[in-house]
Amino acid sequence: MDSAYGVPRELSGLQKQRALYQPGLPPCLQDTTVRVEFGDATTSADPAGAHVISQYFPRTYGQPLAHFLRAKAKVPDAQIITEHPAIRVGVVFSGRQSPGGHNVIWGLYDAIKSHNHNSTLLGFVGGTEGLFAQKTLEITDDILSTYKNQGGYDLLGRTKDQIRTTEQVNAAMAACQALKLDGLVILGGVTSNMDAAHLAETFAESKCPTKVVGVPVTLNGDLKNQFVETNVGFDTICKVNSQLIGNVCTDALSAEKYYYFIRLMGRKASHVALECALQSQSNMVILGEEVAASKLTIFDITKQICDAVQARAEKDKYHGVILIPEGLVESVPELYALIQEIHGLHLQGVSAENIPSQLSPWAAALFEFLPPFIRNQLLLHPESDDSAQLSQIETEKLLAQLVETEMNKQLKEGTYKGKKFNAICHFFGYQARGSLPSKFDCDYAYVLGHVSYHTLAAGLNGYMATITNLKNPMNKWRCGAAPITAMMSVKRWSHGPAASLIGKPALHPATIDLKGKAYELLRQNASSLLMDDVYSNTGPLQFDGPGADAKAITLCVEDQDYMGQIKLLQEYLDKVKSIVKPGCSQDVLKAALSAMASVTDVLAVMASPSSSGQPPF
Amino acid sequence: MDSAYGVPRELSGLQKQRALYQPGLPPCLQDTTVRVEFGDATTSADPAGAHVISQYFPRTYGQPLAHFLRAKAKVPDAQIITEHPAIRVGVVFSGRQSPGGHNVIWGLYDAIKSHNHNSTLLGFVGGTEGLFAQKTLEITDDILSTYKNQGGYDLLGRTKDQIRTTEQVNAAMAACQALKLDGLVILGGVTSNMDAAHLAETFAESKCPTKVVGVPVTLNGDLKNQFVETNVGFDTICKVNSQLIGNVCTDALSAEKYYYFIRLMGRKASHVALECALQSQSNMVILGEEVAASKLTIFDITKQICDAVQARAEKDKYHGVILIPEGLVESVPELYALIQEIHGLHLQGVSAENIPSQLSPWAAALFEFLPPFIRNQLLLHPESDDSAQLSQIETEKLLAQLVETEMNKQLKEGTYKGKKFNAICHFFGYQARGSLPSKFDCDYAYVLGHVSYHTLAAGLNGYMATITNLKNPMNKWRCGAAPITAMMSVKRWSHGPAASLIGKPALHPATIDLKGKAYELLRQNASSLLMDDVYSNTGPLQFDGPGADAKAITLCVEDQDYMGQIKLLQEYLDKVKSIVKPGCSQDVLKAALSAMASVTDVLAVMASPSSSGQPPF
Repeated sequence: MDSAYGVPRELSGLQKQRALYQPGLPPCLQDTTVRVEFGDATTSADPAGAHVISQYFPRTYGQPLAHFLRAKAKVPDAQIITEHPAIRVGVVFSGRQSPGGHNVIWGLYDAIKSHNHNSTLLGFVGGTEGLFAQKTLEITDDILSTYKNQGGYDLLGRTKDQIRTTEQVNAAMAACQALKLDGLVILGGVTSNMDAAHLAETFAESKCPTKVVGVPVTLNGDLKNQFVETNVGFDTICKVNSQLIGNVCTDALSAEKYYYFIRLMGRKASHVALECALQSQSNMVILGEEVAASKLTIFDITKQICDAVQARAEKDKYHGVILIPEGLVESVPELYALIQEIHGLHLQGVSAENIPSQLSPWAAALFEFLPPFIRNQLLLHPESDDSAQLSQIETEKLLAQLVETEMNKQLKEGTYKGKKFNAICHFFGYQARGSLPSKFDCDYAYVLGHVSYHTLAAGLNGYMATITNLKNPMNKWRCGAAPITAMMSVKRWSHGPAASLIGKPALHPATIDLKGKAYELLRQNASSLLMDDVYSNTGPLQFDGPGADAKAITLCVEDQDYMGQIKLLQEYLDKVKSIVKPGCSQDVLKAALSAMASVTDVLAVMASPSSSGQPPF
Repeated sequence: MDSAYGVPRELSGLQKQRALYQPGLPPCLQDTTVRVEFGDATTSADPAGAHVISQYFPRTYGQPLAHFLRAKAKVPDAQIITEHPAIRVGVVFSGRQSPGGHNVIWGLYDAIKSHNHNSTLLGFVGGTEGLFAQKTLEITDDILSTYKNQGGYDLLGRTKDQIRTTEQVNAAMAACQALKLDGLVILGGVTSNMDAAHLAETFAESKCPTKVVGVPVTLNGDLKNQFVETNVGFDTICKVNSQLIGNVCTDALSAEKYYYFIRLMGRKASHVALECALQSQSNMVILGEEVAASKLTIFDITKQICDAVQARAEKDKYHGVILIPEGLVESVPELYALIQEIHGLHLQGVSAENIPSQLSPWAAALFEFLPPFIRNQLLLHPESDDSAQLSQIETEKLLAQLVETEMNKQLKEGTYKGKKFNAICHFFGYQARGSLPSKFDCDYAYVLGHVSYHTLAAGLNGYMATITNLKNPMNKWRCGAAPITAMMSVKRWSHGPAASLIGKPALHPATIDLKGKAYELLRQNASSLLMDDVYSNTGPLQFDGPGADAKAITLCVEDQDYMGQIKLLQEYLDKVKSIVKPGCSQDVLKAALSAMASVTDVLAVMASPSSSGQPPF
C-alpha cells in the first residue's frame, strides 16, 4: 500500500499553475521568531459542563489561550521562543477529505524546516490505520511539489475518522513512542478533533511526551465556535456547489418546466446549504435547524413546498430550485425517531433484513409508508460517529415524490390549476469534495499548518490551531491556539445510541444560529428569492479576477472577531483601572464601583449554569 | 410570459467580466464585404438515398456548397455581395439549451447591424411555441448586454424542439409572413435542423420568401458529418463534466473505498462520455457504440465491470471511476427491444400502468427481472423524437446494483477474495448544461452567428451555417454553409415507432466512429487507464491561463478538414489540367489518360449505392 503514496504524478495544466501559487503569511508569522502570549485560563462555553469536563480532562482542561505575535510586538507578558531544537512531528488525515488538506501539511512542513532544517515531518499513509500500523512517509520538498494547492487527500490517503477505542488509542501512542514523535498533528472535523483531545489527555496521563494538536479541516463547516470561525474546505465546497446550483438555476430559467431538488453534502448541520443558498440565490432552502426548531414533520415540509409551487404557478412559473441539506432527514422529528430505533436494533446485532419486523408499531407504520428506496437507505449501518449514512439517504427524492403526489392530487381535485409538476433530483457531494481548493482555502490551510508548528514549538498539548478575523485581509488575521476542552459541552439528554454520550464532554457539530446574521440575511430575502428568480451564477472557481478572492458570505456577515472583542474588553478594563487610581476623586470611585457592581451582577447571572440553554441538537 | 424576457439582470462578478469578452472573427468575415464562392452541387453521404432525398426535397436538394472568403480573395468564380438591404430576421431556440446559444444570437445581431443598421433581429420568446404564437422580442444592444458569453437560453427561453406537424409548420410560416421575415435562424441539434430543412422546403414550395438557416447547437455533439466538425456547447459540457469527474477521481484516490458510476448526459450517442473519458482519464467508459457493435447484453457489461473490479482488487485497489453515457440503455439489445415494445404500447394509447401486462412474454420476463426503480423509469412516455427519456433512466444504478450483487456472490463463493464492493452513483447533466460557455464555445457560437447572417445575405435557403478546421486557431477557420439535405440519409430498416421513418430522408445522430482516431486513442490507453489510476484533474473551467484555450481532444485528434481536403483535390485536378494542355507531349497525355481512367473507375465503384453500408444505428 505504501508504494502508492508520495509518487510524483502528472498534473494538468491548471494543476501545474496552481502548484506554483505561494500563499502568504500574516505579519505575526513572517519572522523567524514568534512571540507567544498566553491569555487567561480558558473556561467552557457550557458553564454547566465545566466541572464534568475538568474531571474527564484533568490534565488538559483550563489551559490558557495562546496568541502568536510578532517578535517585536509590545506585549508585556509574552514569551519569545528562540530555541528551535530539531523535532519530529507526525501528521495524519483523520476526517473525511476536504479541499485544502494538503496545504496544512505543506505549511507545517515549511514552518518546521524554516525553524530547524534537521526537523522531520512524517506523514502517516492510509490515514488513522497507517498511524496504528506505524506506516509513514517522510515529507520532502519533492514529495510535496505536485500536491501544493491541490485537492483530495491522496498524498497520504485516509481510512476511518476514528481514534477512539482503547486498542486504537494504544496503537496511536505506541506509534508516537516508537517513532519518537515530539508532536502529532491531526487533521479533521468534530470527531477527529475530539479524538485529538482524548489522545492528548491520555498521552499526558501516560507521560508520553508527544504533544497533540488538532486542525479544523472539514467541508461541513460545523466545527465552529468562539475560537474557530470556519474550517478548511468549506469555502471551496460552497463555491463549487454554488457553481453547479447556479448552472441548474440557469437551466431552470431556460426550460421553465422543472423543479430541481438538490441535496448537498455537509452532514448533520446545514452550513453548506445556507452558504450555497446565499451564493446561488436559489428559490428555497430547507434548513435542518429550522425544521428541528419548529418541529416540522415531513408533511409540513411537503406542504411548504407545495404552497410555493402553487404560489409560483399563479405567477405562471413552473420551475424552481430547492436546496436540501443531507442532514435534513435527521432533523425531521418522526424520521429521526425512526432512524434512532433502527440504529438501536443495529447495535443489538439485528440484521438489516430483520429490523423492519422488530420496530415499534408506530415506527413500523411510518417505515411502511415510506417508498421502498428510502426504506433500504434508512436500514444502512450507521457511520463511525453513530449518525445515519446521510450521503446515501435520498431525502431529495422522498420530498420530490411526496410533493408530486400532492400536486397531482390537487390537480385532480381542481385546487391546483397549473401545469403538471415535474421534479429532477440531484445530490452534490463527491464531485465538489475533490476540487482544487479555492484561494481562501489554500491560504487558510497553509497558515494553519504554520500555526500548528508554533503550537507544538510552544509545548502545547490538546490544542487546536486557530486563526480568527478571517473575513479581513490576511495581514489582519490573528493566529493562536485554543484548548480543545474549551470547545466542549456536556449533553444532558439524547436518544438512541447517542445516549452513551449523556453526561460526557464532547465536541458537537455547531448548528446554524437561527439568531445569527447569515440566517437573518436569508430570511430578509426569502420571499424575493422564492418568487423573483434572482438567481446568481457565480461560475466556475477562478484563481484570478472577479470572485477569486471572494470569501464565504456566512463568514463575512457575522461579527465573529471573538478574540478581537476579548481584547477590546481588556482595553476597557485597563482604562477603568487607569482612571480610577489612588488619588482620583470620591465621585469617580463611587461611579466606577456602582457601574462595575452592576456589570458583574449581570454577568454572574448570565454565566450561571441554569441560564445557559442546551444547544438545540 | 413575455414580460419575463429581455429584462436587464444582475450578474455575478465573473459573469460581468465574461460579458466584456469580445470574440474575434476569422479573416474572411473581418471586412464589411464578403465574397461567396459556390462549389459544385452537393450530393448526399448516403448515395443509395440520394434519389429519395431529391424526391422529398426537390427545391432544396443538390444545392451547391457555399464558402465565405475575404472580398479580396483571388477566386475566379466567387461573387461579392455588395448590396446589403435592410432585412428582417427571426431567431428561435429550438433544441435543448446548450452553452453558447446566446452568442449565436449576439453574432447574428452584430453581423446584421454592421451591414445595415436598419435591419431588424426578432427573437421568438418561449422557443418554438413563441414562433407559432408570433411572440417576439426585438434584440437590441441593451437586451444583449447581460447575455453575452453567458450560459442557458434564458434570454428567450425554449419550449419543445419540434416544428413538425402540419399545424406547427403552418403556424411557423404564418409567423414568418406576418412578421415579413427575410430569414429565420433555427438553433438546435439533429431534430431541430431536420425541422429547419423541412421548413425550408415547405417555404420554397409555398413561395414564402423567408429563407431558413440552421445552426448546430447541441451539447450532445452528435450533429457531426463532413461539413460539421462539432456543435456549440459540446466543448463546455465536456469541460465542466471533466472537472467534476476529475474531482470524483481525486476523491476516489483519497478514500480508496468506492467505485463511482457516473452517467453523463448526451442522448443516444456517446460523444460526451468519450471526450470526458479522454479528458479525465477515468478507469473505464462503457461506450454505447461498442456495446451495440458487439451486441453486449447487460450481463456481458456487468461481467466486464466485475472482471475489472477483480483485477484491481488483486492490485489492492478498491476504488474506481466508470463513465456511462445516458444512451447506453438504448444500445443494449435486450433493453432496446423492451423499450421499443413499451413505446409501441404508448403509441397505441395504453396507459403506463397497463403496459407491463401487455408486454410479450419475453419482454415481460426481462421487465420483471429489473429492479422496480428502473421499471418505472422505462415506462415513462417517450420524448418528442420518439426516444426514451434517457435523462430519467438511471442506468448507472442498474449497473452498480448488478455488479454489487455479482461481487457479493463471488465473495460468498470465495472466487473473489477482496474487500466488499461499494458503489456510489452520479448523474451529471443539468449542472453542466447551464454553465458559462468555454472560450471555444463563445468564439464558435459568435462566429456561427455571423455566418448565419452571410448565408441569408447570399439568399440561401435550407442551409446550415458551418465552420471547419476548428482545431486550428481562428485565423485558419473556414466559414461556409452546406445544404442540410447533403447531410441526410435514408434508413431502410428500423424497429418500433421509429419505423415510421423507414424509407424517408432524415438527419441521424452521428455515433462514435469505432475506426476513428479518438476511439483508437482511448483503446490504446485502456489498460493503463483501467489499472494505473492516471487520473487527470483538469480543474474548473478557466477563461485565462492554462487550459483556457484548450479544445476538445476528440476534435483535435481527428483529421477533420473535409473542406480543406476538397480544396486540395481541386488543386490536384487543376495541376493536371495545367500540365496536360494542348501542345504537351503524347507520352504525358497517355500517362494522364491512363491514370485518370483508373482513378475514375475506382471512385465510380466506391461511390455506387451498393457499396455503401448503412450506419450502424
